[in-house]
Formats: sequence, structure tokens, C-alpha cells
Amino acid sequence: MFETVRVIGRGRAGSAVSQRLTERNLRVVERGGDLIVLCVPDNVIATVAARVPVGPWIAHVSGATPLANLAPHVNRFSVHPLQTLTLARGADQLDGAWGAVTGETSQAVTAATWLAEQLGLRPFRLADEQRVLYHAGAVMACNYLVTLHRAASRLLSEASVPREALLPLMQRTIDNDFELTGPIARGDSKTVAAHRSAIEEHAPELLPLYDALAEATAR
Amino acid sequence: MFETVRVIGRGRAGSAVSQRLTERNLRVVERGGDLIVLCVPDNVIATVAARVPVGPWIAHVSGATPLANLAPHVNRFSVHPLQTLTLARGADQLDGAWGAVTGETSQAVTAATWLAEQLGLRPFRLADEQRVLYHAGAVMACNYLVTLHRAASRLLSEASVPREALLPLMQRTIDNDFELTGPIARGDSKTVAAHRSAIEEHAPELLPLYDALAEATAR
Repeated sequence: MFETVRVIGRGRAGSAVSQRLTERNLRVVERGGDLIVLCVPDNVIATVAARVPVGPWIAHVSGATPLANLAPHVNRFSVHPLQTLTLARGADQLDGAWGAVTGETSQAVTAATWLAEQLGLRPFRLADEQRVLYHAGAVMACNYLVTLHRAASRLLSEASVPREALLPLMQRTIDNDFELTGPIARGDSKTVAAHRSAIEEHAPELLPLYDALAEATAR
Repeated sequence: MFETVRVIGRGRAGSAVSQRLTERNLRVVERGGDLIVLCVPDNVIATVAARVPVGPWIAHVSGATPLANLAPHVNRFSVHPLQTLTLARGADQLDGAWGAVTGETSQAVTAATWLAEQLGLRPFRLADEQRVLYHAGAVMACNYLVTLHRAASRLLSEASVPREALLPLMQRTIDNDFELTGPIARGDSKTVAAHRSAIEEHAPELLPLYDALAEATAR
């Protein structure tokens, strides 16, 4: 579909994307290109897009940014890899991840799906007006999982327990398809109250988080 | 150390424990026993313990329950498998998990460590007075991970995106050793504000949870 691709940005996303496209025997070029893929921070997408001469197709890989930020281009789409990317890994980190494809025309959706597949992503359609909601879900599952792990690690440290002990527990929670066990599943409000007192005494800054999670779990 | 073990309770924990002890060629008996392991709900441990004739060693496998609940027994300890257990799996679900061992005498700690090792757990010491704090951390890492997944799934469903797409993301977050990426790591408060508006409109019951997590993450 495209033969030469220009990738702008070499951060976490840009590095993985350009490496993967090279692996696919596409020509990754520094200027020109049939397709320009913006892998720049969300807050500069509009500025960078406005500077690219109109003509070739243009795309971004942002989760929450609307396609309108690619104006004045109309041959535009987005592919968002639903994955947490690190510079410590290569293109292989895209393998098995899903990819949100968004386009305003069938041609744009075809182009987006092509790019997702070249990247090794499993494409699914995402409506432009749903991007922010979708991205909030992604952040909840990924960034806030980091927060949960930090909070749990802190409580274990306070109890002089090695935090590595949490790893098999968290892994199995995923492997067991997120089956709920523990005090709230058992309706054991006494244990929950005891947790609250202990947190209040030893890590009071975590109490609002504990309460919000307990309440959402009970619901 | 012990040759005959009586396991009281055949729920998630009791099933895995009795199966594992049998695999270890210990005699799992229905009455008597050198060691009695209570695998009953937290709120009945004290009652069940009080009914067992004093003499043999007694243990519980609860996370948050103090050893005092095993009174009037003094030959007592606890081993808590730090794992989410299901009846759908066997004793193998104990493999690789850590186990909190608690005892009030060196003999009790030796006995607890023996049991943890028989079960296939990696033993670590847990002070009796730290149990509740430790257990709050375990619940945070496990039960509230379920809650996080449910909340994220709900947001994706609202955006008409398949929730399975979250799995590679959550798995990689763990595999990347909980490295924080995303808007809060980038200091992108505009995206966070956009998330809040979208959640308020489409899933308002999740807003307190989102806010508590965002605040804890930023901190």
C-alpha cells in the first residue's frame, strides 16, 4: 500500500515503529515518503502536522488525540498501539498487542489497518469521538496498575515483607482471568475495617486510594 | 517434622493444601494428627481452634488473623500462601508463590517454615503484629487488580473496544517491571483532564476511583 514511510520522532513509539517497518522491508526515509507517521508527544502533534506539506498520507500513533489535530491534512488516520513501550525493548514489543485504527473514510481505515498489520498489531476499530474514553481505560489498566503495585509494595515494606512476593500473586490474578477472591468477595467487612486502621496508622496517604478501590470492588 | 496432618476445611486453601501434603507422602488424616491445619474462613478460626483438644501443633493459613485466635493452643503458628487460589486448579497453584510464616517461638517458626516448604512456598518471616498491614498490601495487589481490570474493561466497552485488548497491555506492564509510562509520567495534565470529562459523561461512578488513582500516581 505504501512503499516509503517517514517516521517523525524516535522516542518509545517512534523507535519501535521505525524498526518494525524496516524489518518489513519498507523504506523508512528521512524526508518525503508516501506516508508520514508522527510519533511525537501528543501536545506537539498539531504543530508538527501543520508543518508537513499537504499531499502524502499522514498518521499519528497517539491514544487520546483526535484526528482533527492532523489538520490541514485530509488523507489522515491513526494507529494506536495498545501497549506500554520502552526503549529497552525493540520492535518485538509490538507483537501480540492490539492496535486501535481510526479513519474518517473507508480508504483511511484500509490504510490504518495496513499500518497496524505491518507493525504486527491486532487491529480493531476505534471511533474518533471515543478515543479519550478508550485511552482513559488504557491508562487505568496500565499506568494505574503501576500505582497499585507501588501502593501494595509500600504496605509490604511497612510490614517488613519482601515486595518480590507480590509478583506471583499479581501474575496469577491475571492468569486466573481476574477471578475475585479475598475479604470483599467473602463479605468480610471486619477485615476491610482492620486494613483501614492499619493503613491509617502506617501509610495514611494511601487511605483515600484504598477506600476508592474497596468501594469500587464492593460495587 | 510432622508425619500426620489433619486439614480442617476443604475450600480453596484446604483443597490445595491437603492435595499438596498428600503428594509429599505425608499422611493426611481425618482425626488426630501431629499437626492440625485450619483452612476455614477467618471469622470461624477462633471457634474451630477452641474446639480442637490441646496437645498437637495447630496452624492457620489466614493472612490477617492473629495467632491469638488459635487460643487456648500455645503450640501454634501460621503459614499464609500469598496467592489467589481457585478450586479450578490443584496443588500446583502453590508452586512459586511466597508464604508468610509466623510463630512466637523459634520452634514455632521452624515448624511454620517446614510446612511452607512442604507446600512448595518460598517462606518469609511475618511478624504477628504486621499481619493486617501485610494483608492490606496483598489485597491491594490482587483483589484491587481485579477491580482495576473491571474498571478499564468498562471504559473500553463504553468505547466499543474489545476488552481482551487489555491483556497484552497489563501483562507487559508487569513484565516491564512496572515502569510508569503514559500521560502522568509525561506531565500531560491536559490528557488527564480530558479523561476526567469523558469518564464523568460515560461512566461517572468510576470518577472517584480514577481521581484517587491519578492522585496517587502523580504523588
